[in-house]
Amino acid sequence: MSSPQTGPNPQRAAPSWQAIAEAHARIDPHIHRTPVLTSRTLDRISGAQLFFKCENLQKTGSFKIRGAANAILSLSEEDARRGIVTQSSGNHGAAVACAAAWRGTRAWIVMPKTAPRVKCEAVEGYGGKIAFCEQTVTARKEMAAKVQAETGAVLIHPYDDDLVIAGAATAAKELLEEMPDLDAVLTPVSGGGLLSGTCLSARHLKPAIRLFGCEPAKADDAYRSLQTGTLQSIDSSDTIADGLRASLAPRTFAILRRELSGILLISEEEIISAMRFLWERMKIVVEPSSSIAVAPLLKTGGLAGLHLPARADGAPPKIGIILSGGNVDLSALPFSNA
Amino acid sequence: MSSPQTGPNPQRAAPSWQAIAEAHARIDPHIHRTPVLTSRTLDRISGAQLFFKCENLQKTGSFKIRGAANAILSLSEEDARRGIVTQSSGNHGAAVACAAAWRGTRAWIVMPKTAPRVKCEAVEGYGGKIAFCEQTVTARKEMAAKVQAETGAVLIHPYDDDLVIAGAATAAKELLEEMPDLDAVLTPVSGGGLLSGTCLSARHLKPAIRLFGCEPAKADDAYRSLQTGTLQSIDSSDTIADGLRASLAPRTFAILRRELSGILLISEEEIISAMRFLWERMKIVVEPSSSIAVAPLLKTGGLAGLHLPARADGAPPKIGIILSGGNVDLSALPFSNA
Repeated sequence: MSSPQTGPNPQRAAPSWQAIAEAHARIDPHIHRTPVLTSRTLDRISGAQLFFKCENLQKTGSFKIRGAANAILSLSEEDARRGIVTQSSGNHGAAVACAAAWRGTRAWIVMPKTAPRVKCEAVEGYGGKIAFCEQTVTARKEMAAKVQAETGAVLIHPYDDDLVIAGAATAAKELLEEMPDLDAVLTPVSGGGLLSGTCLSARHLKPAIRLFGCEPAKADDAYRSLQTGTLQSIDSSDTIADGLRASLAPRTFAILRRELSGILLISEEEIISAMRFLWERMKIVVEPSSSIAVAPLLKTGGLAGLHLPARADGAPPKIGIILSGGNVDLSALPFSNA
Repeated sequence: MSSPQTGPNPQRAAPSWQAIAEAHARIDPHIHRTPVLTSRTLDRISGAQLFFKCENLQKTGSFKIRGAANAILSLSEEDARRGIVTQSSGNHGAAVACAAAWRGTRAWIVMPKTAPRVKCEAVEGYGGKIAFCEQTVTARKEMAAKVQAETGAVLIHPYDDDLVIAGAATAAKELLEEMPDLDAVLTPVSGGGLLSGTCLSARHLKPAIRLFGCEPAKADDAYRSLQTGTLQSIDSSDTIADGLRASLAPRTFAILRRELSGILLISEEEIISAMRFLWERMKIVVEPSSSIAVAPLLKTGGLAGLHLPARADGAPPKIGIILSGGNVDLSALPFSNA
């Protein structure tokens, strides 16, 4: 399942603060400035002050529109005319389809046959064309290359792309600009686009901040990559967090090695329990790939595991959580009658 | 199932604007000023500009805290010490339990045995005691009287109470103060507390506004009451909108006869379809008793059925919708694999 690959170069240049600010200016007229919600119940349970950046309420239902829009709106006229192709477990696909429509060009989206119906409908609703493939990373890459060869379309990778990372970084930029006093930020991690972008923005705006990625124990390549210092990958996983089945790229790994405080591994049960909690108590629809970033704080002793320094004001720590998306197939929910 | 009762007196005094403003000042420090959300997808489908007042994000998960808090915070010290009793299908019960805790007194909540687990847990979570009874209106009244006789507690009716109506009216007050240019407002209707309060606030702030109640066809007493001019009631209904099984009271009927533009009857399938739509597209958890107020606008020709006058600016009509609550039992969702 895992294999060492090329080691990252930690000195590799990452998107600059200027690139992130330019991305924000570029996409701001098109996207929602999503609300930051709070919950006294969750504050009580976690022992912290939590601030939820609700990218589930973002256009296309996830933060992915930030990166896709930044990349597609940055294309030259000539490249844009060629159309766009991408491989995605769903949210990046919908985002590319939507941003391509904004740009007035076509989009082909490579998706696994197992992608939830609601995600497929979203892609098609934005006018994107779906090319189905098997569930493995290899199959996705091959199908994307095939479409690219046949159509001449420009490939927009879901995360191994500086423009996509700079776009993803704007979510944490908005969060920190609204709540500058955060002690830590938690996000999900899959390919690392959101997490590395979050690291870049948050570290720039508050150098001492602690930054964590939350990863399914069933798809723990990022955890193992950071433990070993060598890029690990998984070819497939059946974690319920269907948006978190990809592996880090050298580009995102290099940023995380420099900036990240740690990876927190989360069980399937904890992902589902956190999801139910957010739906029942906060009345918002989040997908399992998002609820994972809340799960560490619902555990007994979860907060202590973050090793946050005491605040000067003596108040409970202030923790930002990026709820990355809300695209769920309501026909196949994991809530039992327990 | 239905029986004519005492006719209402349309001249009966309703809560004044001053009473509503006082209610707002009284409860404002305790409640959320809930957001007003929009959705381009829903605007496109409905042909209108829709503004969703999200009382599902309100404390206790519904607008009911507004009326309960206004009534309980208005009690004399002596009355407050006696404790509170109420009968409720759930949301009013949770609200009374919560507001009683704010006031530092006890609450007994009479609930049908069939109430969703999540609603019972909410009541108990706020420290309320539940007295279970059969599902009929008669059984609830009898149990509430029994508890009252045994404990001496003050009865706070879910809607047949001017202070509760004035509290409920503050939701539309906030909505119209934020969006003064609305052409119409739609709310669910059950006992008529929210709808009559909405009528009072909206009519005061915009006299020409059109006001509609949305009611399950399976629990259509308000529709029949307004058609016949005589108060009708139902003793029980199995509509999925479990918050909409009560009947108008003389007090709410009198207000609706004066102020309401019409009642829209909604099928069970339309309620479920609208609920799924809000969850999938807007990523918010609303209960069936709330989604009913969106259902008329998802039908072909639904907007035309409201007979709204053309706007002076030529734009699509602006319609406010009060999403009354979000307390749903996730173990028993009505979404099939269709």
